[in-house]
Amino acid sequence: MTESTPGNILVINGPNLNLLGTREPEIYGKETLSDIEEKCKAHAARLDLSVIFRQSNSEGEIVDWIHEARNNAQAIIINAGAYTHTSVALMDALLAVELPVVEVHLSNIFKREEFRHHSYISPASVGVICGFGSRGYLMALDALTETIKK
Amino acid sequence: MTESTPGNILVINGPNLNLLGTREPEIYGKETLSDIEEKCKAHAARLDLSVIFRQSNSEGEIVDWIHEARNNAQAIIINAGAYTHTSVALMDALLAVELPVVEVHLSNIFKREEFRHHSYISPASVGVICGFGSRGYLMALDALTETIKK
Amino acid sequence: MTESTPGNILVINGPNLNLLGTREPEIYGKETLSDIEEKCKAHAARLDLSVIFRQSNSEGEIVDWIHEARNNAQAIIINAGAYTHTSVALMDALLAVELPVVEVHLSNIFKREEFRHHSYISPASVGVICGFGSRGYLMALDALTETIKK
Amino acid sequence: MTESTPGNILVINGPNLNLLGTREPEIYGKETLSDIEEKCKAHAARLDLSVIFRQSNSEGEIVDWIHEARNNAQAIIINAGAYTHTSVALMDALLAVELPVVEVHLSNIFKREEFRHHSYISPASVGVICGFGSRGYLMALDALTETIKK
Amino acid sequence: MTESTPGNILVINGPNLNLLGTREPEIYGKETLSDIEEKCKAHAARLDLSVIFRQSNSEGEIVDWIHEARNNAQAIIINAGAYTHTSVALMDALLAVELPVVEVHLSNIFKREEFRHHSYISPASVGVICGFGSRGYLMALDALTETIKK
Amino acid sequence: MTESTPGNILVINGPNLNLLGTREPEIYGKETLSDIEEKCKAHAARLDLSVIFRQSNSEGEIVDWIHEARNNAQAIIINAGAYTHTSVALMDALLAVELPVVEVHLSNIFKREEFRHHSYISPASVGVICGFGSRGYLMALDALTETIKK
Amino acid sequence: MTESTPGNILVINGPNLNLLGTREPEIYGKETLSDIEEKCKAHAARLDLSVIFRQSNSEGEIVDWIHEARNNAQAIIINAGAYTHTSVALMDALLAVELPVVEVHLSNIFKREEFRHHSYISPASVGVICGFGSRGYLMALDALTETIKK
Amino acid sequence: MTESTPGNILVINGPNLNLLGTREPEIYGKETLSDIEEKCKAHAARLDLSVIFRQSNSEGEIVDWIHEARNNAQAIIINAGAYTHTSVALMDALLAVELPVVEVHLSNIFKREEFRHHSYISPASVGVICGFGSRGYLMALDALTETIKK
Amino acid sequence: MTESTPGNILVINGPNLNLLGTREPEIYGKETLSDIEEKCKAHAARLDLSVIFRQSNSEGEIVDWIHEARNNAQAIIINAGAYTHTSVALMDALLAVELPVVEVHLSNIFKREEFRHHSYISPASVGVICGFGSRGYLMALDALTETIKK
Amino acid sequence: MTESTPGNILVINGPNLNLLGTREPEIYGKETLSDIEEKCKAHAARLDLSVIFRQSNSEGEIVDWIHEARNNAQAIIINAGAYTHTSVALMDALLAVELPVVEVHLSNIFKREEFRHHSYISPASVGVICGFGSRGYLMALDALTETIKK
Amino acid sequence: MTESTPGNILVINGPNLNLLGTREPEIYGKETLSDIEEKCKAHAARLDLSVIFRQSNSEGEIVDWIHEARNNAQAIIINAGAYTHTSVALMDALLAVELPVVEVHLSNIFKREEFRHHSYISPASVGVICGFGSRGYLMALDALTETIKK
Amino acid sequence: MTESTPGNILVINGPNLNLLGTREPEIYGKETLSDIEEKCKAHAARLDLSVIFRQSNSEGEIVDWIHEARNNAQAIIINAGAYTHTSVALMDALLAVELPVVEVHLSNIFKREEFRHHSYISPASVGVICGFGSRGYLMALDALTETIKK
Repeated sequence: MTESTPGNILVINGPNLNLLGTREPEIYGKETLSDIEEKCKAHAARLDLSVIFRQSNSEGEIVDWIHEARNNAQAIIINAGAYTHTSVALMDALLAVELPVVEVHLSNIFKREEFRHHSYISPASVGVICGFGSRGYLMALDALTETIKK
Repeated sequence: MTESTPGNILVINGPNLNLLGTREPEIYGKETLSDIEEKCKAHAARLDLSVIFRQSNSEGEIVDWIHEARNNAQAIIINAGAYTHTSVALMDALLAVELPVVEVHLSNIFKREEFRHHSYISPASVGVICGFGSRGYLMALDALTETIKK
Repeated sequence: MTESTPGNILVINGPNLNLLGTREPEIYGKETLSDIEEKCKAHAARLDLSVIFRQSNSEGEIVDWIHEARNNAQAIIINAGAYTHTSVALMDALLAVELPVVEVHLSNIFKREEFRHHSYISPASVGVICGFGSRGYLMALDALTETIKK
Repeated sequence: MTESTPGNILVINGPNLNLLGTREPEIYGKETLSDIEEKCKAHAARLDLSVIFRQSNSEGEIVDWIHEARNNAQAIIINAGAYTHTSVALMDALLAVELPVVEVHLSNIFKREEFRHHSYISPASVGVICGFGSRGYLMALDALTETIKK
Repeated sequence: MTESTPGNILVINGPNLNLLGTREPEIYGKETLSDIEEKCKAHAARLDLSVIFRQSNSEGEIVDWIHEARNNAQAIIINAGAYTHTSVALMDALLAVELPVVEVHLSNIFKREEFRHHSYISPASVGVICGFGSRGYLMALDALTETIKK
Repeated sequence: MTESTPGNILVINGPNLNLLGTREPEIYGKETLSDIEEKCKAHAARLDLSVIFRQSNSEGEIVDWIHEARNNAQAIIINAGAYTHTSVALMDALLAVELPVVEVHLSNIFKREEFRHHSYISPASVGVICGFGSRGYLMALDALTETIKK
Repeated sequence: MTESTPGNILVINGPNLNLLGTREPEIYGKETLSDIEEKCKAHAARLDLSVIFRQSNSEGEIVDWIHEARNNAQAIIINAGAYTHTSVALMDALLAVELPVVEVHLSNIFKREEFRHHSYISPASVGVICGFGSRGYLMALDALTETIKK
Repeated sequence: MTESTPGNILVINGPNLNLLGTREPEIYGKETLSDIEEKCKAHAARLDLSVIFRQSNSEGEIVDWIHEARNNAQAIIINAGAYTHTSVALMDALLAVELPVVEVHLSNIFKREEFRHHSYISPASVGVICGFGSRGYLMALDALTETIKK
Repeated sequence: MTESTPGNILVINGPNLNLLGTREPEIYGKETLSDIEEKCKAHAARLDLSVIFRQSNSEGEIVDWIHEARNNAQAIIINAGAYTHTSVALMDALLAVELPVVEVHLSNIFKREEFRHHSYISPASVGVICGFGSRGYLMALDALTETIKK
Repeated sequence: MTESTPGNILVINGPNLNLLGTREPEIYGKETLSDIEEKCKAHAARLDLSVIFRQSNSEGEIVDWIHEARNNAQAIIINAGAYTHTSVALMDALLAVELPVVEVHLSNIFKREEFRHHSYISPASVGVICGFGSRGYLMALDALTETIKK
Repeated sequence: MTESTPGNILVINGPNLNLLGTREPEIYGKETLSDIEEKCKAHAARLDLSVIFRQSNSEGEIVDWIHEARNNAQAIIINAGAYTHTSVALMDALLAVELPVVEVHLSNIFKREEFRHHSYISPASVGVICGFGSRGYLMALDALTETIKK
Repeated sequence: MTESTPGNILVINGPNLNLLGTREPEIYGKETLSDIEEKCKAHAARLDLSVIFRQSNSEGEIVDWIHEARNNAQAIIINAGAYTHTSVALMDALLAVELPVVEVHLSNIFKREEFRHHSYISPASVGVICGFGSRGYLMALDALTETIKK
């Protein structure tokens, strides 16, 4: 866990996102999570950034990674999946590390069930991008470029 | 994790169910979780099914097991304990794997505190059985027999 | 109303269940209520029980039947249909007769409209079975077997 | 239904009150409904009134009786039981007949479940008496004496 | 119950509507229910339709009539009175018979108490007409003409 | 404060009740509070009881009087006026002294503003009497007679 | 704006109704707003009435038209579209002009999203007609005939 | 209004956005709306798109523009300002024109007052971008590129 | 308490207002309550009125003063402080005395915590003035001038 | 729009206020809006201020006027009528221009329907004056005098 | 009231606490309030502090004492009893005096009725201690030691 | 995990508490979690107790530790951090082990966001201590002393 190159961005994917491409493709598209990882890394390279790309189904593990980001990243992109709507712990972790955070969702969560309209991640984020599929990750990288360079 | 025999049913037990038999027996009865496991296995055998029986206190680990069920099980019986009422992640996992799911609770949750009346598991399940103690697991196996055989 | 054989179980069906098999079969299946009655009687016979099987669209009549159950039944299985969600009178009747009650629903009511998620029957029941179609009645009979024999 | 003597008071008892004396005596006391009927008739006699005393488990039948009261009664005493909390139809019927109405409950409904705290009968009544057991009926008769005599 | 002439329309009137003309005329007008029945029959005749006109104070009886409509009517006009606001059973019955339904109210229910603003009948109806007194029934007949003739 | 004769009943009147007879007579009647006091004393005498009759606009003073009742009264009749709806302190005091309490209101509070439908006094009372004007006090005395004599 | 012929009825159409016939025809039908205007004018002629037919996407402009109606119309038919659910200004305008108002909706708003169930127009209207497509406008004209003639 | 070049994107700015750069710069930044317009046009040119850029304080005018977009644009980017939270009319207009819509906000609305967390625009949009200042408009253009080109 | 000169206005100040000038001056200003009293008296003199100026931390005492106002005042100006939000007793007292009442607050209560947005005083008042510091009292005097003189 | 004399105060009147004097005079008085304008101008003159007096039924136009106030006024008095309760756009406009704002209502909005108790204008105002009819405008001018002169 | 020794701590006890030891001992323990006073004084002595120990059933009197604390105490320990849940006046008083405040409850209020879970005292306190019986007072003294000495 | 010395107290720290001293020091102070551990161990030693001190970001791991406490501890002190507000699983675990529990929070959670005011830990605890920083842990140890020794 010593990959602290300047320009590092930690990309966190929450529960069930490991199933991407195999699960409800009419909602989430056919890309797998590795497809997205590759896209992110290529796009980051173009922006002179590098990406640490992770997925976990465990709330606690994601909290751990956010803490580590203080040492190995300059910003966080997070698609917290279902934990978006239930995890005060993630919100507290993001607030604590004081890095710029961008919240991403593949689908437009405001078109889905009522309980998915509330996010504990948003108040801890610079901004929110949702509904653009995997492109949302790249847009998040774009958005972080200036911030990171400053 | 290669036990993919046809007829496999994954039985998942959520947080604190490992204490069964020792904890508040006036609510949950005197049986231990191994007693229930044995009963399930015997009953499954009679129905020509087999059972993978698991318990975890970790939401993330349960999500992992549900994912694995795509390869090693044909149906899921889940008593998600406290996570029933708080875990969108479990709901998403169950919806994603597209296996028949039966929700079981030992006690009648509708006789208990208000916050236990809502379940994130129910909308992802074929049906719900609650209030019949360990017999509920066997009823769930019965209910799945036809589904599995089809 | 003098059929008080030991082992009698009163099976009550609420409003609109007389239309079963002809109404919205994609939700309720193709079986008619007589089909279910027959299945119940056959299954009860195997369990050494007998069944009084009734249907009414009238809340008051169902209350009457529950009262009579004190004399002619040892347990009640009830699918109260729409009255599940609106009838305090049924709840009071069930609490008053002090017999074991099992609540059954053909469909998984938790997948339907919000107002169908609340049941006045549940707090007066030993347990709840929903989502398994007519099999739910048989599961309820199974569940009552031991109770009745004690 | 031709008993229209001046001074007639219709006493209506709602669902499950026919079980009085046999049901949850720790809440409702040991008196049966006929005991109360007798007490009411004796007390009414002392007040130079007469009483029509009825019970039904059917909402519709109670509505019918309230309508008839226009011809055969000068006031109504009603213990609507569970329909207190759910029946707009009873409220409308009581408002329509324009007779003085007294709402009575054996138990103190405000010490019981939340949903029993709301009454559709109260806004259609002169007053409410609850918590005094069968004596409440006699108090209601006392309260109506002057009204009736005017 | 064999009056199944083509063009039959079942007009159902719920609780307390039998008091029409005698009750709160400032709200409901001076017409009696028979006046309305006559008007409906005359109007229907002009439209080459016939009308079965009924009133009941019993929820269960109304459910029964709705069921029968499958055999003896081609459409339903319903003024469910107080059951509009409380009866899931009526809603389920109307949904089950799959006939065109028009909901009618004499008064404008949206000018009255809050609890009268919600209707379980509306989601089961083609349309709603309220506030036009007995003319609302005739408007409903007009509205059904084309539907019936198709 | 040493008037502890057996059969003493403390009658407490809350804020603004001192204005009775002069204030909004269409709601509260023309009787003054002394009129009611006299009536109570006369009625109590007939029942072989005596009455301590008090009024205060101060929540704290009423709490004090309830405490004293442990020494000088065998029961409490309370019309807490506006404090009915806001005073947890009165509720706690009434629960603490463990005397039988009867809650009285002159008007039918359930016909008035929504915020007057909730009472902190009711859960601490044997029963509730409202809507009968000053007669409610006498009814409360009647209701307490047996209790007191036991 | 001087067209004050007796028998004039102002028909107001709110936001987005200009798209009728081109927009979501499965909900709103294939007729254009001019088709409806023509139908209204023809129907009004048959009833010896005349119609001023307007549409605007601007809340303020609709308020202006309602004000003008005091001088040029004897009644208002209004389909306020989306402003139905959000505009207190329209409600106030309708209340202020003191003309008979009929609220019309093409679709049955009670079958649609929750936020479309509340109308600020209803409390300012004589009555409501919804769910009958363009025929609803004609029904509104019928309903206003007598009123206008008086 | 005849600028229907292929690749046209309508960018709509709602109420008060004309004050940008002069108003609360600590929230909205120092750029004026013309600065943003220029940036958008330059960025669009790079993407081979063109931009129609508008601002209005009038809900009705914005509805008009959305309607016109059917003829002169292939997609809509909308920052509806305060109307985001109150305008069902805008939502209906966006749904009606059936063009791809991207919702943009300069600030992160989820960090502001509770009433700004709900958007009527979101359910009518492909996706939402908020919190990235004027860059959000450019991100929206990027996101629409592929869609437009298809 | 015999100062019943014509033109008397009772100015009531509720809990904690005695601390004015010493407490949170950034919210309430530096004036003390005596400063305000003086200002009021001087201003009243100019208007040919006189002022009785009082402050109490006791709800009951304020109720008493309001009652007395029937004899010694022609109008009431009240800044009820915290009791504004919790005291039904004050509301009832103000309604009972049937004098013109003006509600005053030093600060703009609608800019403060949610629970300070509701006032039990407002429905009993002619009007409300808030946010203008001590000037609000003088404005209230102005507003009462005509009323008093009539 | 070049009337930027020092001491200018913009007085804005919202929807339906143009009907003043002709509409529901029992609530709003008999004065017309021009009467109020005249009064305001005369009063302002006495205070060495001048007044720009406007009314519109259009939310957008009012927003425009508020923006212009930055150049032509030193303070704003606003009676936003129905938009008070629904317009976030007005609130944002008022916050943006950073002038002192006084909110005025002719009637006491807290005595009217629940939905009129909430104001989006209040949090953007220095203070609120309601219930004093047209005098409220003059009181607002008084209140602004010192502020303006500073 | 001149006991302003340095190190003084005002200990305030709210309504009904004078009954301690005699009232519901299963909840509040057998100690009387004087027992607690003694314990506090002894403990304070050990900490080189002194204690002013008071109890009142009157909200206004408690507000007065809090005000006086500005002169005679350096910190406040308050068990506001029932006023905890209803008194904005106490909250305002505590905020105004700007002394360190510790909130104490004998029982764990979060295990009791819902309405006891909210405290107006907490937002005005440094910290909260509940559930430890009289020991809670001593813990509060400990907690204040350092604060006081600074 | 065999450290079952008598007098053992398990101190559990939830998510993000490992960051203490480095994170938002204006809220949580400058002490690190090891500082607190040391303080606890020293203080426990003085009380003849010993302490097992743990922190985890994983809900499941904390549940495991609570279960183990049955064998290795006599009481639990828990600062569950963000899980306080979301974890039914922790509540169930604490209820199951039937050890005395003290809930501790460094900050006064009642001064923070609304969602932090509810605790699932409180109903499973003897008492709650919040707002006293690390001293709260020592106060909890003090509070447990007697309990442990009994």
